[in-house]
Amino acid sequence: MTELLRPEEFERRLRQIGADRYHSLHPFHRMLHEGKLNKGQVQAWVLNRFYYQYSIPLKDASLLSRAEDPAFRRAWIQRILDHDGTSAETGGIERWLVLAEGVGLDRDRVRALVGILPATRFAVDAYVRFVRERTLLEAVASSLTELFAPDLHKTRIAALLENYDFANERTLAYFRTRLTQAPRDVEFGLSYVLREARTRDQQELALAALRFKTDVLWAQLDALYYAYVSPGFIPPGAFVPEDRR
Amino acid sequence: MTELLRPEEFERRLRQIGADRYHSLHPFHRMLHEGKLNKGQVQAWVLNRFYYQYSIPLKDASLLSRAEDPAFRRAWIQRILDHDGTSAETGGIERWLVLAEGVGLDRDRVRALVGILPATRFAVDAYVRFVRERTLLEAVASSLTELFAPDLHKTRIAALLENYDFANERTLAYFRTRLTQAPRDVEFGLSYVLREARTRDQQELALAALRFKTDVLWAQLDALYYAYVSPGFIPPGAFVPEDRR
Repeated sequence: MTELLRPEEFERRLRQIGADRYHSLHPFHRMLHEGKLNKGQVQAWVLNRFYYQYSIPLKDASLLSRAEDPAFRRAWIQRILDHDGTSAETGGIERWLVLAEGVGLDRDRVRALVGILPATRFAVDAYVRFVRERTLLEAVASSLTELFAPDLHKTRIAALLENYDFANERTLAYFRTRLTQAPRDVEFGLSYVLREARTRDQQELALAALRFKTDVLWAQLDALYYAYVSPGFIPPGAFVPEDRR
Repeated sequence: MTELLRPEEFERRLRQIGADRYHSLHPFHRMLHEGKLNKGQVQAWVLNRFYYQYSIPLKDASLLSRAEDPAFRRAWIQRILDHDGTSAETGGIERWLVLAEGVGLDRDRVRALVGILPATRFAVDAYVRFVRERTLLEAVASSLTELFAPDLHKTRIAALLENYDFANERTLAYFRTRLTQAPRDVEFGLSYVLREARTRDQQELALAALRFKTDVLWAQLDALYYAYVSPGFIPPGAFVPEDRR
């Protein structure tokens, strides 16, 4: 583990992590995209995924707080602006709340994080803490799941429009917007990682960071599956769909 | 220490801290504004103050990383955008570098933080750490020295233009810009503190945070005075003006 990987090989290994481990492969996402989730299960997904959306700007701001280069910050701050928007009616968090209303959830209860699965919190909080505590290189590398997101979002938009009544351009605006934002973000992040990982050890740390991030995403779907698909054990205090009340 | 202060009294005590302790009262600032600093002393001031400018966006991003309300973040992020700008040619850090060149310093050495006084680092780093570790209320309260900044900056622009050859609208653009930015920022910060300090204990914490921040600013000028005015003990590794080489 001492020889530096050539950039093409390093990038290939980063991309391979997506092919092997990205949450597009998870049974819960397969069910979602095949129209096999019922209303309560879709609601549980939207509600829990909100906690991830809610946490992303906090993660990006903590990364920003350790980025000493103004040019780096000028690029990275765009992510926070994308999520928070420039007014209460704009931004990714707001678009996710529109989706939440579209699937029949109460906006205020979602915003107040009522009924989020503990396992969702643990996984997402682990991600925020990882970015806060690890090197900037690892923090940036952990964002590279965005390499794999546009394909997933393209599939998702088509699949949801085909399979669910709630799906329309308004409720799916979050995903539509990410189709253009994610490639811009990931181009910056990928070149940073390819450039700043200057030793083999750093390259391995970057690969491990991206694997960690795929674990974070995967664990969120595991939690949804166990609670709302099979065996269907909803933990105390977590969201209970109408048909299970 | 149990009775809640009425908002007017709380605000009066916050403002009193400025009247008693703001660094406008420091002998080094008096000398600066009276045209009594020589070239090397002005350079030392500009160089060391750069470390503060350099650190401010890191401080604000760490505050942002703990601010869970998107509306709060939308307001606070403006401070980072102001400092970093939207391109390499804009923003407060760049304007400070223009001032540094104007007083005859080398831009690249300033950016690389060569020759900053250790005491400057200790004071500024203490501020960054304070904002990172204390409550959001204390973090915001510590920013309220901006209540007192516009008066200082107005005096400064006139005083520098009158007393120093390097001073012109281009080199002083940093201060001119802050005349409009600081009041907007402080309006937001002050109403936040007045609203969110809901117990007398919290009010006292906010007052202590603002006092702490005045200490941070004061200590930076103490360090400059000791090293470059009297007794003139320049610590090993710190910037040495030409006439002292």
